[in-house]
Amino acid sequence: MITRDTIENSFKDIQQHICIALEQADGKATFQSDHWKREGGGGGITKIMQEGNIIAKGGVNFSAVYGPTPSSILKALGLEPADFYATGVSIVMHPINPWVPIIHMNIRYFEMTSGVWWFGGGIDLTPHYIDAKQAHYFHTEVKKVCDAYHSSFYPCFKPWADQYFHIPHRKETRGIGGIFFDRLGKDAAISKERLLAFTLEIGKLMARVYPQLMEWNSTLPYTESELRWQRLRRGRYVEFNLVYDKGTKFGLDTNGRTESILMSLPPLAAWEYEAPVAEGSPEQQTLEWLQQNPDWLTL
Amino acid sequence: MITRDTIENSFKDIQQHICIALEQADGKATFQSDHWKREGGGGGITKIMQEGNIIAKGGVNFSAVYGPTPSSILKALGLEPADFYATGVSIVMHPINPWVPIIHMNIRYFEMTSGVWWFGGGIDLTPHYIDAKQAHYFHTEVKKVCDAYHSSFYPCFKPWADQYFHIPHRKETRGIGGIFFDRLGKDAAISKERLLAFTLEIGKLMARVYPQLMEWNSTLPYTESELRWQRLRRGRYVEFNLVYDKGTKFGLDTNGRTESILMSLPPLAAWEYEAPVAEGSPEQQTLEWLQQNPDWLTL
Repeated sequence: MITRDTIENSFKDIQQHICIALEQADGKATFQSDHWKREGGGGGITKIMQEGNIIAKGGVNFSAVYGPTPSSILKALGLEPADFYATGVSIVMHPINPWVPIIHMNIRYFEMTSGVWWFGGGIDLTPHYIDAKQAHYFHTEVKKVCDAYHSSFYPCFKPWADQYFHIPHRKETRGIGGIFFDRLGKDAAISKERLLAFTLEIGKLMARVYPQLMEWNSTLPYTESELRWQRLRRGRYVEFNLVYDKGTKFGLDTNGRTESILMSLPPLAAWEYEAPVAEGSPEQQTLEWLQQNPDWLTL
Repeated sequence: MITRDTIENSFKDIQQHICIALEQADGKATFQSDHWKREGGGGGITKIMQEGNIIAKGGVNFSAVYGPTPSSILKALGLEPADFYATGVSIVMHPINPWVPIIHMNIRYFEMTSGVWWFGGGIDLTPHYIDAKQAHYFHTEVKKVCDAYHSSFYPCFKPWADQYFHIPHRKETRGIGGIFFDRLGKDAAISKERLLAFTLEIGKLMARVYPQLMEWNSTLPYTESELRWQRLRRGRYVEFNLVYDKGTKFGLDTNGRTESILMSLPPLAAWEYEAPVAEGSPEQQTLEWLQQNPDWLTL
């Protein structure tokens, strides 16, 4: 029988595991830890890295909160009043070098005194410049983790990410996607023990796959024009996170800890009116892919 | 009897009037015009200025659109199905020099074939560094325009702006406010003719008051540290516009022209985790004022 303490402790361990891996990969910056308490119950540990060798700004949040379920959440989820408990790890990394992609990972567990419980999470990549080979690598690694738990996971969670990370007003996806899932509970194809193991594997994948992408790309030379493009793509990242992202909305709406929620925003972002993109340029290729959203495993 | 053509043409004239005043005040950049059509009826003229002497990035949008009212709008406004017509002018200016404030102005007219009609609008200032004297000047000028039309306008529309431009997750206002009003129609204290004249006066006020603020502040020297603060304050501007602003939300939700809607975003914005602010610094003074939101007329 899996208790919430088991889950909370293993999530805390995963936060630690990922931070060690990222510090090693960066080689310069270390995470600054902030322990915070939530009015109403629980709290968290926000770990922030700024101005590293490779990472410009990134956060690895852990939280475990509980108390009466806010009515806005009950309404949104269609649930009867009861106390809730939620724990999770949430990560966003913004690199200095435009050739290194932005990464996002989140795993979360939710339960209520009424007896409902579920896991949610995902991992996805937002390259400023899409490299088809690396996109293939990323999706292959994600699929391997999924396949080890259930054959339906990748085929179901990959399109879920495509849908979730779509930016309607730009008619493009935020990046090359990955997986996204929510409310995997009693009805899931695998047991609670296996669901926990699956979410932890996503955390370990993050600690493996992002250092690899850092290694491949962080020593590539870049120009001011490529930095400009990075800032514009980060602008799109801001648009997605502030307009559409449910985690951000939920956090801000429920009076969450603002600095922890908005650690996902980039150090510097730009907006230009109808930013010009040169014909046949790598920027145009990236834009086309974001509009087409091809299947990276078979491309 | 005021027709929609009268209103549309006078709004178009105001756009022109403001653009001329801003070009003169900037002395270098000119507005680039984009005429666009809306699928379903109507269109607009977006005028953008970038990389001026004083203005880094700014837009003066005019639009006049019509057609069947989107169901999302009917629902939001609690109206019966009918065709709508809407015209307006919307402005945001982001200056280069951190001592020059950001300004926003909007005037709009809405009517439906069912017979309802109203005006809305406002003008408000977002200094990166608040200067109490200039805040007093701005509110004095705004109040004068209001008072010439009805004694209730400033006392009613000033707190409306305070409420509208509040950023709950930051516990601060976007700037020093100004006025905001919506759905001023048949029940308003003054006639339709006078309401139109009032909104046009707000446009003329914009063309007068912002060049004055540019003149006072645009030649003041500034440091890299002040530019950093400007980028952080622009970050808050982005947060307000993408998370809370109803015009932005409405535009994106109803498939509006994205590049025209998001002209309000700054050329460059920054986010730092718990950005440090020195004790007794002008940055801290500004933050305190944004948290307290004092009455600028009596301060």
